[in-house]
Amino acid sequence: MLLSGTVIVDADTVIDDGAVVVEDDRIVAVGDRTDCIDRYPDHERDEYDLLAPGTVGAHVHSVQSLGRGIADDTALLEWLFDYVLPMEASLSAEEMRVAAELGYLELIESGTTTCIDHLSVHHADEAFEAARDMGIRGRLGKVMMDKDAPDGLLEDTDDALGESERLIQRYHGVDDGRIQYALTPRFAVSCTEECLRGTRALADEYDGVRIHTHASENRDEVATVEDETGRRNVHWLHEVGLTGEDVVLAHCVWTDESERELLAETGTNVTYCPSSNMKLASGVAPIHDYLDRGINVALGNDGPPCNNTLDPFTEMRQASLLQKVDRLEPQALPARTVFEMATVNGARAAGFDGVGKLREGWKADVVGLETDLTRATPIHDVLSHLVFAAHGDDVQFTMVDGEVLMADGDVLVADADAIRERARECAGALEVAP
Amino acid sequence: MLLSGTVIVDADTVIDDGAVVVEDDRIVAVGDRTDCIDRYPDHERDEYDLLAPGTVGAHVHSVQSLGRGIADDTALLEWLFDYVLPMEASLSAEEMRVAAELGYLELIESGTTTCIDHLSVHHADEAFEAARDMGIRGRLGKVMMDKDAPDGLLEDTDDALGESERLIQRYHGVDDGRIQYALTPRFAVSCTEECLRGTRALADEYDGVRIHTHASENRDEVATVEDETGRRNVHWLHEVGLTGEDVVLAHCVWTDESERELLAETGTNVTYCPSSNMKLASGVAPIHDYLDRGINVALGNDGPPCNNTLDPFTEMRQASLLQKVDRLEPQALPARTVFEMATVNGARAAGFDGVGKLREGWKADVVGLETDLTRATPIHDVLSHLVFAAHGDDVQFTMVDGEVLMADGDVLVADADAIRERARECAGALEVAP
Repeated sequence: MLLSGTVIVDADTVIDDGAVVVEDDRIVAVGDRTDCIDRYPDHERDEYDLLAPGTVGAHVHSVQSLGRGIADDTALLEWLFDYVLPMEASLSAEEMRVAAELGYLELIESGTTTCIDHLSVHHADEAFEAARDMGIRGRLGKVMMDKDAPDGLLEDTDDALGESERLIQRYHGVDDGRIQYALTPRFAVSCTEECLRGTRALADEYDGVRIHTHASENRDEVATVEDETGRRNVHWLHEVGLTGEDVVLAHCVWTDESERELLAETGTNVTYCPSSNMKLASGVAPIHDYLDRGINVALGNDGPPCNNTLDPFTEMRQASLLQKVDRLEPQALPARTVFEMATVNGARAAGFDGVGKLREGWKADVVGLETDLTRATPIHDVLSHLVFAAHGDDVQFTMVDGEVLMADGDVLVADADAIRERARECAGALEVAP
Repeated sequence: MLLSGTVIVDADTVIDDGAVVVEDDRIVAVGDRTDCIDRYPDHERDEYDLLAPGTVGAHVHSVQSLGRGIADDTALLEWLFDYVLPMEASLSAEEMRVAAELGYLELIESGTTTCIDHLSVHHADEAFEAARDMGIRGRLGKVMMDKDAPDGLLEDTDDALGESERLIQRYHGVDDGRIQYALTPRFAVSCTEECLRGTRALADEYDGVRIHTHASENRDEVATVEDETGRRNVHWLHEVGLTGEDVVLAHCVWTDESERELLAETGTNVTYCPSSNMKLASGVAPIHDYLDRGINVALGNDGPPCNNTLDPFTEMRQASLLQKVDRLEPQALPARTVFEMATVNGARAAGFDGVGKLREGWKADVVGLETDLTRATPIHDVLSHLVFAAHGDDVQFTMVDGEVLMADGDVLVADADAIRERARECAGALEVAP
């Protein structure tokens, strides 16, 4: 396939009137449109105003999608324990499937081609199957909670680890590696030391399996972990093996100097979730400090109950604006840096090689956007446009691993209307809705 | 006209399966759909998923639209003096017209029915004519700068006030009051005492004319005013007559206790511009404090070079999220409060009576939104949806004063494609573009 338009190769390179040529799952050429057509005259063609690497949602809860808006303007503990966790606990296998489909549909429609997805304790198979059917690239994991969890979500340690291992064996690396596994303890508060150490053991046992958890999102959480373990949260996670280049820690809002050093020394990945941190009033993550230390920072929307969308463009804008105002520094987190966080940094956190740029030999994860919009008039700088003015609604084309998931605004891998209709039915029947 | 759908009457009242009946410029009935059809069987009908009061953009710079994205990630003084003011100074009458049309087009398309518009020093007639042609409700004003202004924008005091008076006489109250005048000194830094006192005198001379200026957006600005006048900015403005119920002060980020008291005592209106305050790293306005004191707080997008869009829904979300994270308080500025800021509070600041709710006898300023979108699935609370998940793109219908400006997503009052095309041409020719 030969895709033409203005091509954003990466944060440093834009080709006006360019093209991206795709064969199988790879980009085989990127360059001037006319040159590409001369070299690949027989390739099927499609054209969009703007072509960009698909974004990486490096911390998402697809299966919370039925709870979009269920607990707006509530405090975190109430939000989590009175609404979100009971909702997760209540979902049947079928509802979990619908929730996952709704989440992946929103991601695909708004230009996310890879996600690191924090599922729930039960029915993780449903999300894996939905991801496979819909074609998104994903590092998914069943949530583990073997202490301080509400009814319906608490498991025995052995069950948590055993079920995780079963899922690794079943799904890790399927679909030519498009689906990978992340061991997913919910957070230190809800996992025993045995569970956390068992997580590290499993990650070491299975090649390419990673670890994804929440860390230091909230001051109460940090205080709880310190009370229980005598350690700051990141130190505790380090002690039980949950730091390193194969670990993704979502949030990291409340870290002290020694924890930041530890994150940098161990090469641990951090996912910044600005909208979620704002809406739940968690705080502002010290992203500038992390970047200065060379920590790999990715970007995530978190879940629909705390965002309330999965739009990666809204999140890029938020990422930059929040750092600017927090530091009172207008140059903080410029568009190019944010764009890297949402693409290559995310792919690195997720452990997918050759993902996140439109370069020859890289994976064909491509999105096409329209720009003939008032909001996109004029465009003085295309990277700035993407970060500060574009929106998920602008995405018309989504390709993952060379497979077209959406073209001309139509999702090809699922019946979008049917998913939305089922989701509305399921959400209407949720008992935890206010 | 009989519009049906879920009707958001105001922040406290939602009618499922409702209708709004419009005759001339007024809403004559709001209620159950079937009842309305029984009472008004012969009215032309249209249907949208969601009907809401049009929003009020209570601080906007429509004529900066050609500069969308010209100075992203730059510091405020550089942003203003190296890019935005030179751009304003360089615009010909024709370019100013195109800029205004582009601004009003974006407002109309994304659901803003009333704006308080800070124009530029020159060619203000062009914006007034564009607003009249396109039908938006507006309180517009020519900018006055009689000191510390760059070449091309500096005027004599008499010229600034004289030109303002000419515009008042020409445009204030035209189109059955849809267009009103705001005397618009740029800010205390760029206006002499004579100009500011002359502003108050003119406002008192012409019934219904208001005053709109920037105040205390930035720490350097506040320091400059204090150096020059020996007063805190709001005290200075008060001394020269620029406080009161007919005054709208945009930003008010850096105010001290005594200034806040003064704002409350005088009934001065404040416009909160969260995206702009974030992007320019100005700071976080103490909105909670203002609301506690009973100050009328409205909402504004500011201009495309510092936002970069004029989307009122993005701004509502930003308004709430920024206060939540700043106060570390998830209940801060809930959806209902933000919605009031973006509707009735804005109308009060703008001085338009009977605007901002869908109530019988009120002005027919109505927007219709679609909700059959993944991002809008499910909707647990329609007000929360509008604030946290909706987007200007969802707006399909815009009515002002009973006149349909957009229906089914098509703008009826202008050639949208032609405006965008001309805007791209003009923006491409701007010498100040980087």
